[in-house]
Amino acid sequence: MTKRNDEKLTKPPNGDAAIARAATLKPIREIGERLGVPWEAMAPYGHTKAKIDLDYIASLADRPDGKLILVTGLTPTPPGEGKTTTTVGLTDALSAAGENVAACLREPSLGPCFGMKGGAAGGGHAQVVPMDDLNLHFTGDMHAIGMAHNLLAAMIDNHINWRNELNLDPRRVSWRRVMDMNERALRDIVIGLGTGNGMPREDGFDITVASEIMAILCLATDMADLQARLARIVVAETRDRQPVTAADLEADGAMAVLLKDAIRPNLVQTLENTPVFVHGGPFANIAHGCNSVIATRAALKLADYVVTEAGFGADLGAEKFFDIKCRMSGLKPAAAVIVATARALKVHGGNAVQHLEEEDVEAVRKGCDNLRRHIRNIRSYGVPAIVAINRFPSDTDAELDAIAEEMRTEGVETSLCTHFADGGAGAADLARTVTEVAARDEADFKPIYPDDMELLDKIRTVAQKIYGAADVDAGHAIRARLKNLEKAGYGHFPVCIAKTQYSFTTDPNLRGAPSGHTIPVREVRLSAGAGFIVVICGEIMTMPGLPRRPAAADIRMHADGHIEGLF
Amino acid sequence: MTKRNDEKLTKPPNGDAAIARAATLKPIREIGERLGVPWEAMAPYGHTKAKIDLDYIASLADRPDGKLILVTGLTPTPPGEGKTTTTVGLTDALSAAGENVAACLREPSLGPCFGMKGGAAGGGHAQVVPMDDLNLHFTGDMHAIGMAHNLLAAMIDNHINWRNELNLDPRRVSWRRVMDMNERALRDIVIGLGTGNGMPREDGFDITVASEIMAILCLATDMADLQARLARIVVAETRDRQPVTAADLEADGAMAVLLKDAIRPNLVQTLENTPVFVHGGPFANIAHGCNSVIATRAALKLADYVVTEAGFGADLGAEKFFDIKCRMSGLKPAAAVIVATARALKVHGGNAVQHLEEEDVEAVRKGCDNLRRHIRNIRSYGVPAIVAINRFPSDTDAELDAIAEEMRTEGVETSLCTHFADGGAGAADLARTVTEVAARDEADFKPIYPDDMELLDKIRTVAQKIYGAADVDAGHAIRARLKNLEKAGYGHFPVCIAKTQYSFTTDPNLRGAPSGHTIPVREVRLSAGAGFIVVICGEIMTMPGLPRRPAAADIRMHADGHIEGLF
Repeated sequence: MTKRNDEKLTKPPNGDAAIARAATLKPIREIGERLGVPWEAMAPYGHTKAKIDLDYIASLADRPDGKLILVTGLTPTPPGEGKTTTTVGLTDALSAAGENVAACLREPSLGPCFGMKGGAAGGGHAQVVPMDDLNLHFTGDMHAIGMAHNLLAAMIDNHINWRNELNLDPRRVSWRRVMDMNERALRDIVIGLGTGNGMPREDGFDITVASEIMAILCLATDMADLQARLARIVVAETRDRQPVTAADLEADGAMAVLLKDAIRPNLVQTLENTPVFVHGGPFANIAHGCNSVIATRAALKLADYVVTEAGFGADLGAEKFFDIKCRMSGLKPAAAVIVATARALKVHGGNAVQHLEEEDVEAVRKGCDNLRRHIRNIRSYGVPAIVAINRFPSDTDAELDAIAEEMRTEGVETSLCTHFADGGAGAADLARTVTEVAARDEADFKPIYPDDMELLDKIRTVAQKIYGAADVDAGHAIRARLKNLEKAGYGHFPVCIAKTQYSFTTDPNLRGAPSGHTIPVREVRLSAGAGFIVVICGEIMTMPGLPRRPAAADIRMHADGHIEGLF
Repeated sequence: MTKRNDEKLTKPPNGDAAIARAATLKPIREIGERLGVPWEAMAPYGHTKAKIDLDYIASLADRPDGKLILVTGLTPTPPGEGKTTTTVGLTDALSAAGENVAACLREPSLGPCFGMKGGAAGGGHAQVVPMDDLNLHFTGDMHAIGMAHNLLAAMIDNHINWRNELNLDPRRVSWRRVMDMNERALRDIVIGLGTGNGMPREDGFDITVASEIMAILCLATDMADLQARLARIVVAETRDRQPVTAADLEADGAMAVLLKDAIRPNLVQTLENTPVFVHGGPFANIAHGCNSVIATRAALKLADYVVTEAGFGADLGAEKFFDIKCRMSGLKPAAAVIVATARALKVHGGNAVQHLEEEDVEAVRKGCDNLRRHIRNIRSYGVPAIVAINRFPSDTDAELDAIAEEMRTEGVETSLCTHFADGGAGAADLARTVTEVAARDEADFKPIYPDDMELLDKIRTVAQKIYGAADVDAGHAIRARLKNLEKAGYGHFPVCIAKTQYSFTTDPNLRGAPSGHTIPVREVRLSAGAGFIVVICGEIMTMPGLPRRPAAADIRMHADGHIEGLF
């Protein structure tokens, strides 16, 4: 062990980690007070994190809302586009320009930090801090969600074990268990073995962020709404195929109590001491991939500008932000920033990933088809779009000029950003564009489909209008399931489509802007508590595994308290 | 649901909960400052909990230690004796007498709060607050321990899944998984099913407090010692029957990082605003059942009197406190308070539990044999014993006089306590006795066996000297295992005996002070990180189940934020 550690000490420190460690954090009390939050309404977690009381947030109801800016992206590519860094950079730039601004981000999951290296919220000079805490237990929200989830699971098997008065069918329990860990070996398990340990049945663990409770926490408007949503969760069917809910098992009250602190938004800061709410982090495939409604609403009462982020590319992330989060909560975005890079455009234009460092203006121009589709999609929601080009050192002037020219023909404003290297100063132009667009007050947000459309038509609408597909392919069993859900009273729910984030199609290798394809629906799941219908169109992984050499093997604590290898 | 909740609202509030809610808590900053801890050295968790920085604690090394008072009990009986309330009451009484005092208690486990009602730390007017938080996630220590434990488990199966370069035998993995939940269905499971999900094998979950990591956290002296202990954990054997450690899997660094906050002691307060460290809570059977060494040591540097508690009766709890915790850490107790009740003595004297309300002086006298054995045991460690009689309303003067008389013949000081009803004022006499005994400076602590005694002789020594047994019964396989452990370099470890807490024998129905019996050893387990050998002498449950109607079904949050049904 000594040898191993000595070897590690000679390694140069990681760039992001070194920058984060060099940051001067302000006491969280000051960050909150800058937004006008009194100290009594903050529950500190250490000196640089705090939770904000819900009663205080409720007391702000009569205040006007600030302007909500969504940061989204083109279709993601292997090198990454920098959506989170752009969110942080834009927030810092607005702050530097004298605006009262806050960002709203998702909480990172702990488990994956021990798999592939690179937990984090942002990077370079556009980071949220304290980074170690964000990547570890933070304020415990993830653990609370896991406990609430697993309490419900325990009460299901306990009910079956005793007298099963609800006549619950052990073969039809859909509520699995969760752990915030990359745990391949727990994906498919058999539980209840041995004498006196209940009824043996197949089960499995998902990673905690995939829990419906995470989606519920992020969509709930207050504690009462949270408990009501928890009560509605459907966990199993009876032998007569009737749904069994968390309320039937009388689990909802205890689950709500377990979440009493997790429901309060967390306040932290950027490297430049701008306030950031980091709260909730549902999956962006089987869930809607946005931070909590409570945090976003609180931020809008406290700040004039709120910059938030949605998962994956705009076809999945922004679509769900608009059609699920904004629809349910009444949020009205003022503008959306689409983050793109020359490298990503090259990939969408047919360039191989290994040649990204070489100039290829033609590929960049061709790749703009992908960006163009996302811009038009955003506009179809009545939301003005802005393109942020996140500049990389290898980008050439010819490439950047080509993007600007392509975007001019689309009539969209673009800003070149260097926040990764320069912090907020690198996003000053983007901040100017955002405030100008927002000041025009052009946004007239409406979801892409109405609540009362049939479920299959909702899926088709998203597939055609957003993905550019010709149609959806839903077999008899899927159609019957959708009809049954409508009969059971869930027809007004929005749909939450789970498909690959790497293409407008269901084939991750089809980049660019393919159209005329078919979206096959493989499976439909009810998230009755979250309030949406999950439509699965491809392979969805809800429990990651560790790689051959997990990042955990290189993580350690130095004697001076600094953590090596975490991000 | 509405109906159910309305019914609940009509129930009268629980006594302990009503008292806790009516308490006026001081800001934790004031509680810490009373002990001289500067605000910079406290990491607040909300306004009434804080963690204390390890660097600050290390800076106190040169200060003299306060006096350490252990609170333990006679052999537990169904009605309960009130060890925790006595610890809290004595602490408040010492504080009221003008002493600089702090208590050191264990952290409650969250899972069981949802099973049988009655989480809590203390009761009546002798409670630690904030009670809701103590019974819920508190400062997240339990979750951090669970994550560290399960990360190691994930790395074991991940190692087997990839190339198994350590040649780890999947049939000989002793490291199970944990969850802080009463989870009958997870006791015995099969994992790794399905394609691509690793190697199928038998496994199971224990409750988090049963994790060796909990014992390690409680015995570690600092962060470096913590990581060194984690590295030594033996998790499995190779095909060649060689031990595989957490260090072999390179898991120790990441585990230590996960525990970086959990290792810092938590500071809270009693209802009377006296400082209390609540930190760590290992099982008292397969582990040593005491709060953390770090908290106890910190408290001794900060206070003139430190009152702490050990699990179960003195034969198990005090024995392990002395022979494991004090032996390893060098702590020197000044006195031990043995808590007894007239009701418990009646039970030990042969009275049936259902007749406890009726006077029975003879049973009380007879039951004093049990108490007498514990007194003599305590004295055999060179520690002065004091008896605290925790008075109940049904106790008669004749019964109390009989106890006093029996104890006079034993030459032990007794105090009558009413702290449950009266708070610290009800333990004023006990506080006076404790300070008098401590002032005499009679304690000359030494463990009951030396480090270099053979393991089987250590077991025999505890059985004979503490349990009053004639001998131990250890079969050939057990003896061979003990010899192997000695050969492998673990012979200097103390033994941690896991047996029923309800009797000096291994039969829970044999109350009083039986002697001449045999202690059968069923199994021996190595806790290489904690640094002791677990000797199992009876059925040990490491994962509880939920009852037919779990307490969770009656837990809910009121609109005003108060929690019903949790304790």
